[in-house]
Amino acid sequence: MNSLLTVGSVAFDKIETPFGKTDKILGGAGTFCSMAASNFQIQSNLVSVVGYDFPQEYLDLIKNHKIDIEGIEVKKDEKTFFWSGKYHQDMNQRDTLVTELNSLGSFTPKVPEKAKKSDVLLLGNLTPVVQRQVIEQMEVRPKFIAMDTMNFWMDTMLDELLKTISMVDMLLINDEEARLLSGEYSLPVAAKKILKMGPKYLIVKKGEHGAMLFSEDDFFIAPAFPLEVVFDPTGAGDTFAGGLIGYLTKTLDFSFENLKNAVIVGSAMASFTVEEFGTHKIQFLEKTELVKRIQKFKKMTEFNLPEELL
Amino acid sequence: MNSLLTVGSVAFDKIETPFGKTDKILGGAGTFCSMAASNFQIQSNLVSVVGYDFPQEYLDLIKNHKIDIEGIEVKKDEKTFFWSGKYHQDMNQRDTLVTELNSLGSFTPKVPEKAKKSDVLLLGNLTPVVQRQVIEQMEVRPKFIAMDTMNFWMDTMLDELLKTISMVDMLLINDEEARLLSGEYSLPVAAKKILKMGPKYLIVKKGEHGAMLFSEDDFFIAPAFPLEVVFDPTGAGDTFAGGLIGYLTKTLDFSFENLKNAVIVGSAMASFTVEEFGTHKIQFLEKTELVKRIQKFKKMTEFNLPEELL
Repeated sequence: MNSLLTVGSVAFDKIETPFGKTDKILGGAGTFCSMAASNFQIQSNLVSVVGYDFPQEYLDLIKNHKIDIEGIEVKKDEKTFFWSGKYHQDMNQRDTLVTELNSLGSFTPKVPEKAKKSDVLLLGNLTPVVQRQVIEQMEVRPKFIAMDTMNFWMDTMLDELLKTISMVDMLLINDEEARLLSGEYSLPVAAKKILKMGPKYLIVKKGEHGAMLFSEDDFFIAPAFPLEVVFDPTGAGDTFAGGLIGYLTKTLDFSFENLKNAVIVGSAMASFTVEEFGTHKIQFLEKTELVKRIQKFKKMTEFNLPEELL
Repeated sequence: MNSLLTVGSVAFDKIETPFGKTDKILGGAGTFCSMAASNFQIQSNLVSVVGYDFPQEYLDLIKNHKIDIEGIEVKKDEKTFFWSGKYHQDMNQRDTLVTELNSLGSFTPKVPEKAKKSDVLLLGNLTPVVQRQVIEQMEVRPKFIAMDTMNFWMDTMLDELLKTISMVDMLLINDEEARLLSGEYSLPVAAKKILKMGPKYLIVKKGEHGAMLFSEDDFFIAPAFPLEVVFDPTGAGDTFAGGLIGYLTKTLDFSFENLKNAVIVGSAMASFTVEEFGTHKIQFLEKTELVKRIQKFKKMTEFNLPEELL
């Protein structure tokens, strides 16, 4: 079975949106990524860290999604990473109310022996140093490495970040971050510059405006699915990444044509995540639902314009 | 030959962008709309007004695009509508520096006899009262009426606007305006409400993020073409409308499937307008260029994802 190693936070989230609020619920990039990826028939390992306050129930929940959690370290003397945020009507913007790094602050990833030959590696948004430690622990260079990152690392440790970026096949960032990293406003120009930093593929996430895929000489644009209610956008980007990478792990076809498919799979899965709080929707996603939504993506973007009509 | 009547401003624009600035050049919604539409083999009439300062050279230029200008009134005692604006790096935002309505302020449209049976009517952004005066002058109700409008009329004469909207087949507005008009943040929900006001189709223009087409039970999303340089966005929305309506006038097929094609044609043509100042690029557009760009739209949105891979 094709194998995926995901490294990323497992956390508590407390979320407020115009539609309601939650107590501390299961969150974290690693959680969303690996749960989304678990929808494909792959061998999935998650490397992360939690604290003594993390309930067994949540660990079981992750495990029950056919995700191997041997790589999740439980720190006896620290609490679990906690994030709290508030969304307004424009769900593209959010206020962070609380960020307590806790056990994540001193996280040193330990890749289990059995995961060191994974076909695909997905590096969630962590310090670029930690991301590199994971790459270095691999026994065989994975067939495909994708990484997420954020503006904070561009501002505070650009050199380390560039070193890590140069080692991966795909970088996933949002439009603001692409502009920050490249110093270019135009996204196609930004993409050209960023691809020169090493990766073969760049994904630019644009929230409600969809996602763009760039290679050196090609590009693809997927819209976001226009939902009547975006209930909670938390985890949408991570679900997108997990869905995309889960599909790639299953197919192990890294051609541009199949990357396009992966972007659509990620977009479709992200459109489910935002329909409910936290991981709730993505936990119980039926394959038939996913297939149906992908058909809708096809329908809402496809056109057939005969040249003789022009 | 199928016929289109366009009503809209013919104006002077003075534009500043990060890439340069212009003196007073040819502009106006009616100009961009009818020039874009003139790329199709149709009978095109333009109803508008200019002042004594409007050069014959510009009138000839419009005429040379196979646009009948009998309906352009020249006011001997007033100047031409003048707009001046400045764009910043984020081309979705602009500062209006000057707006002098001049002859447009007292514009009473007079539809020439020969245009009163036009197949299609495109109402550029003017007061909703003036737009209605045009509809009322038609001898036969056009097969298709499309209208543009703006937030200003929503704020200042909503009742008049709603009356005009109830008489048309398609409304074209931007995302902000769709939210303002409907009081709904979610665009699919906003679309539902707006379609209840009368039109069969709603187009939501999202600038660099593309355009959405809604009918009561279907929707379509076209991305904007990702250009390395957006030189001057002035007239992009009007070119989009003109290209879309020009194509519809040529085909006279108002099915949802063909509306999708029209949206792609409009998007492709708008992507040319922004490559140079004013009408310059759209004036000299070759059919082969348009066909090539539409092929790129197809390539950048098309995917083929076999269900068995999920």
